[in-house]
Amino acid sequence: MIPERGISIAELDTPALIVDLDAFEANLDHMRDYVERAGVRLRAHAKTHKSVDVAKLQITRGGACGVCVQKTAEAEALVAGGITDVMISNQVTAPAKVARVAALTEKARVLICVDDSDNIAALSRVMSDRSVSLEVLVEIDVGNGRCGVKPGADAVILAKQIAAADGLRFVGLQAYQGHAQHIYDHAERKAAVDAVIAQTTQTVEMLKEAGLACDIVAGAGTGTHPFEAGSGVYNELQCGSYVFMDTDYGRVRQKDDTPLPFQNALFVLTSIMSVAGDGRAVCDAGHKAASIDCGLSLVSGREDLIYNDASDEHGVIKDPANSLHLNDQLWLIPGHCDPTVNLHDQIIAVRKGKVEEVWPVSARGMGS
Amino acid sequence: MIPERGISIAELDTPALIVDLDAFEANLDHMRDYVERAGVRLRAHAKTHKSVDVAKLQITRGGACGVCVQKTAEAEALVAGGITDVMISNQVTAPAKVARVAALTEKARVLICVDDSDNIAALSRVMSDRSVSLEVLVEIDVGNGRCGVKPGADAVILAKQIAAADGLRFVGLQAYQGHAQHIYDHAERKAAVDAVIAQTTQTVEMLKEAGLACDIVAGAGTGTHPFEAGSGVYNELQCGSYVFMDTDYGRVRQKDDTPLPFQNALFVLTSIMSVAGDGRAVCDAGHKAASIDCGLSLVSGREDLIYNDASDEHGVIKDPANSLHLNDQLWLIPGHCDPTVNLHDQIIAVRKGKVEEVWPVSARGMGS
Repeated sequence: MIPERGISIAELDTPALIVDLDAFEANLDHMRDYVERAGVRLRAHAKTHKSVDVAKLQITRGGACGVCVQKTAEAEALVAGGITDVMISNQVTAPAKVARVAALTEKARVLICVDDSDNIAALSRVMSDRSVSLEVLVEIDVGNGRCGVKPGADAVILAKQIAAADGLRFVGLQAYQGHAQHIYDHAERKAAVDAVIAQTTQTVEMLKEAGLACDIVAGAGTGTHPFEAGSGVYNELQCGSYVFMDTDYGRVRQKDDTPLPFQNALFVLTSIMSVAGDGRAVCDAGHKAASIDCGLSLVSGREDLIYNDASDEHGVIKDPANSLHLNDQLWLIPGHCDPTVNLHDQIIAVRKGKVEEVWPVSARGMGS
Repeated sequence: MIPERGISIAELDTPALIVDLDAFEANLDHMRDYVERAGVRLRAHAKTHKSVDVAKLQITRGGACGVCVQKTAEAEALVAGGITDVMISNQVTAPAKVARVAALTEKARVLICVDDSDNIAALSRVMSDRSVSLEVLVEIDVGNGRCGVKPGADAVILAKQIAAADGLRFVGLQAYQGHAQHIYDHAERKAAVDAVIAQTTQTVEMLKEAGLACDIVAGAGTGTHPFEAGSGVYNELQCGSYVFMDTDYGRVRQKDDTPLPFQNALFVLTSIMSVAGDGRAVCDAGHKAASIDCGLSLVSGREDLIYNDASDEHGVIKDPANSLHLNDQLWLIPGHCDPTVNLHDQIIAVRKGKVEEVWPVSARGMGS
């Protein structure tokens, strides 16, 4: 059910995914000002929100040059909604998906990442058959242990192949270290990203020596972006979680031991549905309402309560003072924003206790 | 995209949720024959699949008397699809939801669970105002530590209140121990359920002494159902996972140390999208394709491969022999079937390498 604009939060059916607009807009503004000062582009990662509305606000208000996505279907949903500059920061190798990417290039600027010579050859065939051009980045594995070729010589070989291929244009490097985002300690996180930057810088230099300029050197996330932004080599940041934040990013510390300068804007609104009276209550949000891959949710604004255990449809709340009553609402801060948003069909944007906007999660479940 | 019937599995866009029809039907038949022999009813739990089509097959072929759901919205979706006997095996306390339950009673047989006196009063007001009757079970907490009143006297008090309330009919007890389902060792699991059965039996006896007959004594899941079925007190089993199974239920052992007599029927079909060549490949299914609350997925039929790490959109596969190539398909057995199904819009039912049916996940995301 889509709630009517103007109704109070107390009237919302739960569980519901809500965004506090004041916090969300502060996050947009902070990042916009940051990248402007740092002199780098922001290409906001839309895998976090999968929403046309949020993507548009990141571009119009938040200073983003465009968005990233991870999936072909996400790119299709966002382009269908009017986003005109989309990087698939991932490999697309299935023949049917490659054909869909080719079709997308006729509707929007589309960029893609590669880490395989056969994939480059296949992309070239399909794009040149269709007489379109695709912008291609070589992904290097800078310690993430996932996709990407080794930095250095292997990357240069692929870049040369792209530069020589019909239908493709070599535009730069994708160098993202996901694990580093979640290192809480500032010095440890910096050390991890220093190694990332060193490998990226060396690869950019080797490409330059081979006559291949990198228009784009892309990577970074919410946890590490000041390091990449200050590196002198990265020029495009791919932060996503900064718009919403979550409990895990809430643990990441800056140099002065303060948290990152973004506010929790995303919440799962839940209601109490059972009260045992023995220091325990049960709410209506479990695994199907909030993801737990980065730990359980926290109860916002209620340090006396602990979201202690989750099952599919329930959360068990430790409430030592037995303060909770049936139908009381709680605001949960999810452990990890991206997979939590993917569980919901809509984001209900609220301000001053009332519903202001309802944003469809345009690419929810679009994993292909 | 909804795949055409008759296409081969190799043509499917991935990640995709697939059901092996031969295994699924064997599971339906095995449980039907079991409950017939045991002389108990099966009320299959539809929280596992959220699908009208699967629910109908459980009733028509699988011997179920009806289904359970956990949420009002799930009940609405299944009743809209033609299911006529639905127990909400959970508390419904929000006033707006109680009104929706009342409306549902005009379209189907609806049963509900309670654990709170104020909730009983509220249900009675709404049902009698609407001149409908709702069948109500008292939920007792038999060790699950979630919803439910204490077994014994507390349950009798609530049952009396229901029996005396306009618009409500007391029909029995809900006594489910979720944690016991997942105790792998047979003797330990039996001991846990013996305690459950003792509490339930005592409560049924106390209700009888108070003049309150239990038409329904409900509970049990895939892991423990032979214990409850043989107890002489339970008469309605609420197994859900048996239709699909998952890696966690695959670890549960019977007395003779064999696995449960149900087959893995549910898989996430995934494709390889990056091959590092150093004993590691990456597939296109991560947290947004398979839940990890009961551990990571296993690769079906490939003991040489380990699904080693998941991120939002990727799975990292350990492939010591470097046997995997780009676009190779793998069948993942999810760690936990229920929250995995809830990530997908459709279940693609396959047999002998081809798509035979496509079942919408009718109540996907319907958490309210």
